[in-house]
Amino acid sequence: MPKVTFKPSGITMEMPSGSPLLASAKEHDVSVDAPCGGQGTCGKCLVKIEQGKVDFDNSGILTQDLVDEGYVLICKSNLGDEDVVVHVFSEFGEEEGKFSHASEDMLLIDRALMPKHEDIEPLVKKKEIVVSEAEVGDGLSDYDRLKTAVLSALDAQYFELPVNVLQTMPNELREEDGKVTVSYYIDNGVVKIVDVEAGDTIFGSYGVAVDIGTTSVAVRLIYMPEGNILAAKTDYNAQISCGLDVISRINYAKKLPQREELRQKVLGTINELINEMAERSAINANDIYNASIAGNTTMMHLLLGIDPENIRLDPYTPAVYDIPFYKASDVGLNINVNTAVYMAPSVGSYMGGDITSGLLCTSLSNQNEQISLFIDIGTNGELILGNEDFLIGCACSAGPAFEGGGIEHGMRASQGAIERVSVDPDTGVCEYGVIGEIKPLGICGSGMIALIAELFNTGWLDAGGKLNRQRKSVAVEPDNRNSRYIIAPGEETEDGKPIFINETDIDNLVRAKAAIYSACRVMLQKIDMDFEDLEKIYIAGGFGRYIDISKSSAIGLLPNLAPSKFSFIGNSSIIGAYMTLVSKKHIEKQKQIEQNITYLDLSVEHAYMDQYTAALFIPHTDSDLFK
Amino acid sequence: MPKVTFKPSGITMEMPSGSPLLASAKEHDVSVDAPCGGQGTCGKCLVKIEQGKVDFDNSGILTQDLVDEGYVLICKSNLGDEDVVVHVFSEFGEEEGKFSHASEDMLLIDRALMPKHEDIEPLVKKKEIVVSEAEVGDGLSDYDRLKTAVLSALDAQYFELPVNVLQTMPNELREEDGKVTVSYYIDNGVVKIVDVEAGDTIFGSYGVAVDIGTTSVAVRLIYMPEGNILAAKTDYNAQISCGLDVISRINYAKKLPQREELRQKVLGTINELINEMAERSAINANDIYNASIAGNTTMMHLLLGIDPENIRLDPYTPAVYDIPFYKASDVGLNINVNTAVYMAPSVGSYMGGDITSGLLCTSLSNQNEQISLFIDIGTNGELILGNEDFLIGCACSAGPAFEGGGIEHGMRASQGAIERVSVDPDTGVCEYGVIGEIKPLGICGSGMIALIAELFNTGWLDAGGKLNRQRKSVAVEPDNRNSRYIIAPGEETEDGKPIFINETDIDNLVRAKAAIYSACRVMLQKIDMDFEDLEKIYIAGGFGRYIDISKSSAIGLLPNLAPSKFSFIGNSSIIGAYMTLVSKKHIEKQKQIEQNITYLDLSVEHAYMDQYTAALFIPHTDSDLFK
Repeated sequence: MPKVTFKPSGITMEMPSGSPLLASAKEHDVSVDAPCGGQGTCGKCLVKIEQGKVDFDNSGILTQDLVDEGYVLICKSNLGDEDVVVHVFSEFGEEEGKFSHASEDMLLIDRALMPKHEDIEPLVKKKEIVVSEAEVGDGLSDYDRLKTAVLSALDAQYFELPVNVLQTMPNELREEDGKVTVSYYIDNGVVKIVDVEAGDTIFGSYGVAVDIGTTSVAVRLIYMPEGNILAAKTDYNAQISCGLDVISRINYAKKLPQREELRQKVLGTINELINEMAERSAINANDIYNASIAGNTTMMHLLLGIDPENIRLDPYTPAVYDIPFYKASDVGLNINVNTAVYMAPSVGSYMGGDITSGLLCTSLSNQNEQISLFIDIGTNGELILGNEDFLIGCACSAGPAFEGGGIEHGMRASQGAIERVSVDPDTGVCEYGVIGEIKPLGICGSGMIALIAELFNTGWLDAGGKLNRQRKSVAVEPDNRNSRYIIAPGEETEDGKPIFINETDIDNLVRAKAAIYSACRVMLQKIDMDFEDLEKIYIAGGFGRYIDISKSSAIGLLPNLAPSKFSFIGNSSIIGAYMTLVSKKHIEKQKQIEQNITYLDLSVEHAYMDQYTAALFIPHTDSDLFK
Repeated sequence: MPKVTFKPSGITMEMPSGSPLLASAKEHDVSVDAPCGGQGTCGKCLVKIEQGKVDFDNSGILTQDLVDEGYVLICKSNLGDEDVVVHVFSEFGEEEGKFSHASEDMLLIDRALMPKHEDIEPLVKKKEIVVSEAEVGDGLSDYDRLKTAVLSALDAQYFELPVNVLQTMPNELREEDGKVTVSYYIDNGVVKIVDVEAGDTIFGSYGVAVDIGTTSVAVRLIYMPEGNILAAKTDYNAQISCGLDVISRINYAKKLPQREELRQKVLGTINELINEMAERSAINANDIYNASIAGNTTMMHLLLGIDPENIRLDPYTPAVYDIPFYKASDVGLNINVNTAVYMAPSVGSYMGGDITSGLLCTSLSNQNEQISLFIDIGTNGELILGNEDFLIGCACSAGPAFEGGGIEHGMRASQGAIERVSVDPDTGVCEYGVIGEIKPLGICGSGMIALIAELFNTGWLDAGGKLNRQRKSVAVEPDNRNSRYIIAPGEETEDGKPIFINETDIDNLVRAKAAIYSACRVMLQKIDMDFEDLEKIYIAGGFGRYIDISKSSAIGLLPNLAPSKFSFIGNSSIIGAYMTLVSKKHIEKQKQIEQNITYLDLSVEHAYMDQYTAALFIPHTDSDLFK
């Protein structure tokens, strides 16, 4: 009997020739994803035969190139006579570190808010049509016949065909007697053709959801017919080197070459993430027919190469809120050049598409009379308060501290980040937990919140953010101006150097938490409410999933409420981008959110400065608030 | 008194300080074009101050860059205190050689057919609008306000703004308090913005009319507000190196890299011509807002990078007849990237936009009951017969001989081309006239027709196209297979080598004339007519203007009719392209022509082969036809 070896697990078995490979794998607990139930339609059970050969019945979903390279769908493969080595891409959908496990992300969101299978209807669709054959003397060009077939199939009047499709279309028309799959979207009443491919290619369709944060960029690769997430990746926004926050980016963008540099940097980050995922999933960039991007107003301006200067100048008028459908080639995305990119609408200079996307993940805009609060903690903090009847929003500058930016040993919550800490009240020494159970590389936002809470609670840090210089501890290195607290000594770290936090870092964190907390208070005062009156507090943001409510309350970031009041929804912007990627219904919903939000400008609210100043202590000058 | 020197004329004068420069120039017969009457609006009296300085009142039509380089409008300049040297671009509108003098071209065409001043309405228009100013809290982006202003000004519903205009538009809006000039066209019911510029730039608008021939490419640079031709240039189509006729280009285009090579070659030719003209006229390529291109079906396919293979394969179905509006960036033209390119529609595989353009220059489609014939003699010969009620057309392969291609010493009818000849009956030696009165470089189409007629009439050439080997002449170099006739001995030519014609060349010319004459006969037989019944015979084509009717009749190319029956209209394709460039009315007229033509496929007409064979003699086997 031939031997089957599954990689990377190393599971080996002997099975009779002719055995279905999928059943064999399942019998031996090899994890293979086959959501279509073995119909060979979803393409998710793609594996690579690295040695030997199996009998593969290609129903057309795999290109000949892929088959030639050894890729098969496991559900459509039977064992032959030879020994085979099968590489299973079981790690698809995961990301290094547990930070952004894509499918886990989704679990944070109320199922009722997610697009259902029947909602799946992307902006760019595929449709199979039959184009009449050319006849001598009919006076019709290929273009004429295609146009007629498309407009009649879609019951539309206007038609646009890109030059590069016109170049290849004549051959595609002739390959399968006029049977072609047309990719298209409708814009301003015009059917815009994206691609014309011979035969049925309905299932060869992928999409990317993108969240552009000031600090991080997240991308999800989606198999469009099913709405499945194939891969997820996050990386720092390469623009970081040009400034840590929105304002410094706007300043940097003043000069045209620098503006172009910013554009190229963020495109570089996005495209590299797309390329890596597509390559790993053996997907051709041309088959990525949909893209949905969410980001704050400045990020979207920079992505499109627009001078963002007016965002921060009175009267704070951005170039664009509701971005029209631009083609991937215009935007610079490395996907099918003709395809339309959907970009989430902004509602204010400092309230962008990341928020209108994030709100899709909450009950604030979903037939709920109770008032809830949505807090997105990123480099900017954005807050929305409301229910189905009204939404008011504001933004405050939290800085990049919670995402690890501007903190000496700060890092994103990924492999090697210290995320849990406890401080010994007597020795002042800390015990910590690291993501990925490896040697620590730095400390992430949730780790810093926990650390400050612990240091404060144990008396090693005072309300003013200063380390205790009176008591001796191996962990505290006093300094007149900027004392340090050693979290992990050099002998425990990856690079042999100690990981510490200093008073400047602590000051940055205190400012960040003060900005957010005081903005919440001002908003609530506007509608004569208090935290207790809220039905729910949604916490979004790259670091949001792992923060400890009691620790956050201890430092004065979040109010001291029952844990059930809080809902951590992680990077809700990327989830919202996913929703609008796969479902036009969610695009409509997002437009409704955009209409409903009233934007409150904190910079003209006198109450805000007072609140902010009062909040620059741990936990607050009015400690009754955190009882 | 300061001295003024005008270049290139060298006219010098002394004038008091403060004298208006335009008046000074006119007083001394310096030819300066100022059609706007010195308002400073048309920009046509642009001159360059090469030395010294004048007082120039720039009303905004010239960019600061131009002013910095010394360009001024002469009508808005007064003499200062210093001596100045003024370069007048009086030679604009001319081309080296008398072949294609642009304004002369127009004189060949019935004035009634040309666009009148009130007809001037290009596809891409400019309009000045006022966009409301941004206000705090109005919830409107720059995009929103621009869109509202444009749609209300144009009473339209849909709007498209290219990314690169979105990038610059915010600053343009703010430069003159919302007063901007919008360049736009309407396509499929959508207002497509091409440009948004601060202030009034209505007069900064240029256009290019392009004729792509298989052998030659002609370009005209037009000042759009007036429809004036600023410059004209013609060059060989760089694709020639990949094949002399349409069929060999189609073969060459089979391989994708070669198809791309052909595309790049013709784009190279066109863009170089545009660049040279724009540079000479000190015009920024971004200000070229309109383009109209005419060419045969294969040339248009190659320009757009489309495989032309199906043009020559049964059932002879091109990819496209009626090309939609593509952007200059999609086509690859070096003009404003966002602007729409109008391309003349084709009606058959071998009846292209050059013909639907050329017909605009004839009475065939202009309310005329009499039947006329239009013959376009290029590498392909195309013929249209008809009146306002019907048009029938056919194409035949004449080869490039009349344009100088495939002829050892053949050349275009430009500087240095032998265009007139007479042969001494006794000595067989020829006297010739050269374009530009310089030493000869080669012989052009009209020269070759005259030469063959003369050689035949004087007995130095027989009806079969063979040179007389019996008589001795210094001009005839006998050879068993391929005798030569020396037109200009080496001592008279530019490069010291003799210019001759050999029997292979003569054979090519005989085939070319036979193809055209026999196609005319077949078409006329179809409607039971003879040459005598025609009201007019229009002769178009690069060589058409200078051919001698009696000589053409002597060799059997044209019938022997009264000279008044013939109308030589030169390169009517480029004139048609000019018409559709400046006038939408003429675009409509061209669409009507496209609808009216019935295409006759000569390759399935048995009568054609018989006629062609009979015409392979000088003048014809039935010499009664040329009595």
